[in-house]
Amino acid sequence: MLDFASDNAAGVSAPILDALRGANLGTAPAYGEDAWTERAHRRLEDVFETRLSMFLVATGTAANALALGALCPSFGAAFCHVNAHVAEDECGAPEMFTAGAKLVGVAGGAGKIAPQALAATLKAFPRGPVKQAQPAALSLSQATEAGTAYDPDEIARLAGMAHAAGLGVHMDGARFANALVELGVSPADMSWRAGVDILSFGATKNGALACEAVLVFDPARATTLPFQRKRSGHTLSKGRFLGAQMLAYLEDGHWLDNAHAANARAARLHDGLAAARLNLPWPRQANEVFALLPARVDAGLRAAGARYYDWSDRDYGEGRRADEVFARFVTSFATTEPEVDALLSLVRDAAAQPEGS
Amino acid sequence: MLDFASDNAAGVSAPILDALRGANLGTAPAYGEDAWTERAHRRLEDVFETRLSMFLVATGTAANALALGALCPSFGAAFCHVNAHVAEDECGAPEMFTAGAKLVGVAGGAGKIAPQALAATLKAFPRGPVKQAQPAALSLSQATEAGTAYDPDEIARLAGMAHAAGLGVHMDGARFANALVELGVSPADMSWRAGVDILSFGATKNGALACEAVLVFDPARATTLPFQRKRSGHTLSKGRFLGAQMLAYLEDGHWLDNAHAANARAARLHDGLAAARLNLPWPRQANEVFALLPARVDAGLRAAGARYYDWSDRDYGEGRRADEVFARFVTSFATTEPEVDALLSLVRDAAAQPEGS
Amino acid sequence: MLDFASDNAAGVSAPILDALRGANLGTAPAYGEDAWTERAHRRLEDVFETRLSMFLVATGTAANALALGALCPSFGAAFCHVNAHVAEDECGAPEMFTAGAKLVGVAGGAGKIAPQALAATLKAFPRGPVKQAQPAALSLSQATEAGTAYDPDEIARLAGMAHAAGLGVHMDGARFANALVELGVSPADMSWRAGVDILSFGATKNGALACEAVLVFDPARATTLPFQRKRSGHTLSKGRFLGAQMLAYLEDGHWLDNAHAANARAARLHDGLAAARLNLPWPRQANEVFALLPARVDAGLRAAGARYYDWSDRDYGEGRRADEVFARFVTSFATTEPEVDALLSLVRDAAAQPEGS
Amino acid sequence: MLDFASDNAAGVSAPILDALRGANLGTAPAYGEDAWTERAHRRLEDVFETRLSMFLVATGTAANALALGALCPSFGAAFCHVNAHVAEDECGAPEMFTAGAKLVGVAGGAGKIAPQALAATLKAFPRGPVKQAQPAALSLSQATEAGTAYDPDEIARLAGMAHAAGLGVHMDGARFANALVELGVSPADMSWRAGVDILSFGATKNGALACEAVLVFDPARATTLPFQRKRSGHTLSKGRFLGAQMLAYLEDGHWLDNAHAANARAARLHDGLAAARLNLPWPRQANEVFALLPARVDAGLRAAGARYYDWSDRDYGEGRRADEVFARFVTSFATTEPEVDALLSLVRDAAAQPEGS
Repeated sequence: MLDFASDNAAGVSAPILDALRGANLGTAPAYGEDAWTERAHRRLEDVFETRLSMFLVATGTAANALALGALCPSFGAAFCHVNAHVAEDECGAPEMFTAGAKLVGVAGGAGKIAPQALAATLKAFPRGPVKQAQPAALSLSQATEAGTAYDPDEIARLAGMAHAAGLGVHMDGARFANALVELGVSPADMSWRAGVDILSFGATKNGALACEAVLVFDPARATTLPFQRKRSGHTLSKGRFLGAQMLAYLEDGHWLDNAHAANARAARLHDGLAAARLNLPWPRQANEVFALLPARVDAGLRAAGARYYDWSDRDYGEGRRADEVFARFVTSFATTEPEVDALLSLVRDAAAQPEGS
Repeated sequence: MLDFASDNAAGVSAPILDALRGANLGTAPAYGEDAWTERAHRRLEDVFETRLSMFLVATGTAANALALGALCPSFGAAFCHVNAHVAEDECGAPEMFTAGAKLVGVAGGAGKIAPQALAATLKAFPRGPVKQAQPAALSLSQATEAGTAYDPDEIARLAGMAHAAGLGVHMDGARFANALVELGVSPADMSWRAGVDILSFGATKNGALACEAVLVFDPARATTLPFQRKRSGHTLSKGRFLGAQMLAYLEDGHWLDNAHAANARAARLHDGLAAARLNLPWPRQANEVFALLPARVDAGLRAAGARYYDWSDRDYGEGRRADEVFARFVTSFATTEPEVDALLSLVRDAAAQPEGS
Repeated sequence: MLDFASDNAAGVSAPILDALRGANLGTAPAYGEDAWTERAHRRLEDVFETRLSMFLVATGTAANALALGALCPSFGAAFCHVNAHVAEDECGAPEMFTAGAKLVGVAGGAGKIAPQALAATLKAFPRGPVKQAQPAALSLSQATEAGTAYDPDEIARLAGMAHAAGLGVHMDGARFANALVELGVSPADMSWRAGVDILSFGATKNGALACEAVLVFDPARATTLPFQRKRSGHTLSKGRFLGAQMLAYLEDGHWLDNAHAANARAARLHDGLAAARLNLPWPRQANEVFALLPARVDAGLRAAGARYYDWSDRDYGEGRRADEVFARFVTSFATTEPEVDALLSLVRDAAAQPEGS
Repeated sequence: MLDFASDNAAGVSAPILDALRGANLGTAPAYGEDAWTERAHRRLEDVFETRLSMFLVATGTAANALALGALCPSFGAAFCHVNAHVAEDECGAPEMFTAGAKLVGVAGGAGKIAPQALAATLKAFPRGPVKQAQPAALSLSQATEAGTAYDPDEIARLAGMAHAAGLGVHMDGARFANALVELGVSPADMSWRAGVDILSFGATKNGALACEAVLVFDPARATTLPFQRKRSGHTLSKGRFLGAQMLAYLEDGHWLDNAHAANARAARLHDGLAAARLNLPWPRQANEVFALLPARVDAGLRAAGARYYDWSDRDYGEGRRADEVFARFVTSFATTEPEVDALLSLVRDAAAQPEGS
């Protein structure tokens, strides 16, 4: 099937599945006190070139909500892009884990918070006035919901503004690897060296079964997380299988290979769609491609069974014509070149049909 | 290693691990909209002989907290045994998921709520007086934290009292299978036919990697659960791997086989300890054995590397002498007869030592 | 002092203060079970021409948050004007009382939600998709934060859209009386007959010491409120003094007299400012007047000790020039004509100064 | 009427009512920024002989819940007497304001926490184990729900145990004045010098209309309170009327006079009941008297219209016979000697009736 609905639609990459079997020997201490989790922790410290606190969980929503809960009190405000996953796609998880904080959307093109918009929001939320939610956190998505990526300087600029105002900085890295390999920088440069305090480091979308890490670069911010993870039901009893996933994910650059593969397929798709003269509003900097599809192209793809999301009802695609569909295509580590080429062939065929046919 | 610390210390049983691999083909809709989850749902309806709503999650704490959140408003009270897992071992998860309800402990021997104690609690919590938390839920653990089991008549009696007072009834079935095979009754008889409204149906302790089902027998009580599961971060993106676990768990009575095995090992351990004239305060009706160990026996076992919990600091073992340890031994599907026999041998050796040696 | 900062800056009107003394005889049942509260309840049913549930509290924030808590689950979304008091001025009270719901701002000129903007928001928040906060409530402010008022048809249109989408409708009536006397309609027409389900009926800003009523027109929506009021600490022990305030407020049309007085002073101020050729962006329909003050006028008023809020840092006054201040003037029942005239005289004097002087 | 139901049944003492009128002049800054509140703050610092942070609110439930919210995280446990008001009579307010903490009841005779029971509870709640609510606060009631009082040494002992375990100490002083005048100690000795970190300093039950102060002796613990008070709806807009109540309450020892009067009436009642040979289980150390009433005495009092609470359904009066009623009588500043004597006369008359008559 030509399934470009989500990188969540993919299965588990072979080394990670093998690691589950490999970890399935004998007994092990429960609740993350096992050797696999300990080794994953050390490995992440190597990868990020720093000491850090690590909390493994099974979902990205849990990772983000725990992170924001560690940064933002109940009377706080967390600033994020208006279309951020934490704001639009988690059914209020950050609000639940913060016990009622406000998520405040900040504007910006191509999924990225614009510095001047952040400045205006910071000005509108001064510290002190008791009637107002108190500014507490900035959340950046890397890669963004628009499939773009902040470069380290952009992160540093936004994080610097946040820190100057006394905020903590969270990064939703559900697609951290995809952005990383595109930018060609180090994990440290794209996170704590640029000012990120807590990172949701995703593995699920990039080949794991269900594994995300909350990485806390400032230990003082991690003190409540063991308890919050437990009371939110996110401390897995057979925790070794989270540790084993994360270890295999990082082993021999497997995570980077997976991300390279996904991005390469997305690039091939992007270039093919561009060659077919489709309108692609945003640069591709990860494993997502957004395109304005003429209605007949959308119809042709759907008729052929292709799967992808119609994001026309989101706030995107201002320039969209009434007869266009704003489509999101996502590739994964498992997407093949023939699948991309088959989709492109369908696009070309449909585009070649006379309009209104 | 002689590891009797917890059934959580065990790994994954072979058919369930195989099922993960089996489900790892191609793409699948995310967030539980996949075919495996659908089939697990139908299979559970067969097993329980009724229509039901099913919500798969990765932890028992999540299952319990979601269930109590569906039964109990923020101003409500949930009654449970004074030593229930929901009260003592989940770091306040029910309080988080209910947004602040009260868990009220009810007394009773051998881990089971005593009907007269429940009656007194219900009398102390009438409906109406606005100063008081309003009675909303009864939570029963099956098997209990003491390794005992309620028979269906006992469940029906307690559930009947609860329903008569307008409460919903939850069952924490983290070890549902272990109690079931011991009692030799049907899943329906031990749950909804006896008055259970929502069941946390555990698989993890009995061979799964991380899989529990919230089963709602009254659909009217399930309406908020899709959203509460999502906003608590418990809707796994690659949900097919939860569905696949549950399917394999139920396939060909695998769950019952695993529970039989665990219980048989526990029975062997229990009988061996009794033969060694140790004090075993409670009947064994699942896969846990509790014993008062003379200090020299405890020391001998620890020296040999045996693992088990010391529950002396809990409210148990009133008859415990100062030089005794209140020990909990848990067996799992993976515990072998030689392991049990090795432990018993250590006990006999240590017991044979002269006191004070 | 020329104090136009807020109607909260005023004291208590004489009949209400007298009523406190009048209620101070002998003992009375606590927690709102007294005769004054009962009579206030009946009187409100007369005023609103319907049976209703009434919950007296001491603050408008409490009334609004309790009302939204009754309409909106923790996973819900409440829609309100982007500048609504519940969104901007209550430090997250609705989020606390709903245990984490989202307030979603809806645009509209002059403080009023635009129907087409509400339609777009309702479209963006369909019922069902589990990733999204579920639409649950519409909150209208009457009078609005811009000192304008919805007429009953406008309320009915917005409430009708909300009901059609399954939402409950809340009205923040902190200045209900001011809007009412301006529109010359009945309390019923401006509330439940137009589709309002729960009304925060304010008295404090209009002459009471500290008294607001949550009025629930549909009793099915009131069942949780006795408990939520208690557990939020808003059930006053000497509740008779809330009842006595509300009774005196309603007695002989005192509430309408107070509102007429406040509005008349605001009208006088508005007309005087207009005559001085100041830019007044919005129609005056209650007891607030907004004006763009040239910097020298602002300086002149401040120098003379006049008090009023500078709202330049809010989202208002798009047309504001850099050298203008966006000023809010509020009158109360206690504001006198000489006070208004003194302010206007200061404005004229300052305006007559040569620019840059 | 012979109303001994509660000190909440009383009205407002004359100086406090006069102070409301006295504060009703002109305008004043809203939300507690007024001169009366500022003076009340300074006066409380004099009374308590220390710098402190003060937050005025209208109810004792609000004061207690805010105080516990400042001491106890959502994953925390607060220890209090099993029959404490915060545990039994506030419908879960502490749970709401802490976002889900646990209240853990500690036993002790005559309403007072027994040190050995606290020691056992502290032992059962060590810091660290992630499965457990983390110990965070001790809450003492002064006077207690049993009408008894801790002397400063008792407070210091319990507070010392709490501090040694890393807990903060809260005192519910709804009847602080009644305990104080009985013990004849200073406010400082009965609070911060004995180890209290946050005090709910009550005035309502002792003559105010609706006024309680949260007093924070350690400023580091007060940082979140301005926001929590606001978002819980407890920041009164016309805050001067809270300030004025508190000022008048403290002026010229008015609060002590009121407490002396209430206690003297309670002492007269206690001695009279003892002379009538009723069973009085607890010493009287404030303005409450508890007595086991033979059924015919209870019937006689009720028939004569006397009001008092029947606490037989609480956990009290273990020695109560089936034909006895466990009665609570509360006096207030407004209770008169003739009222006490009339009640005693009724008791003697009823007691003189032959049994079963």
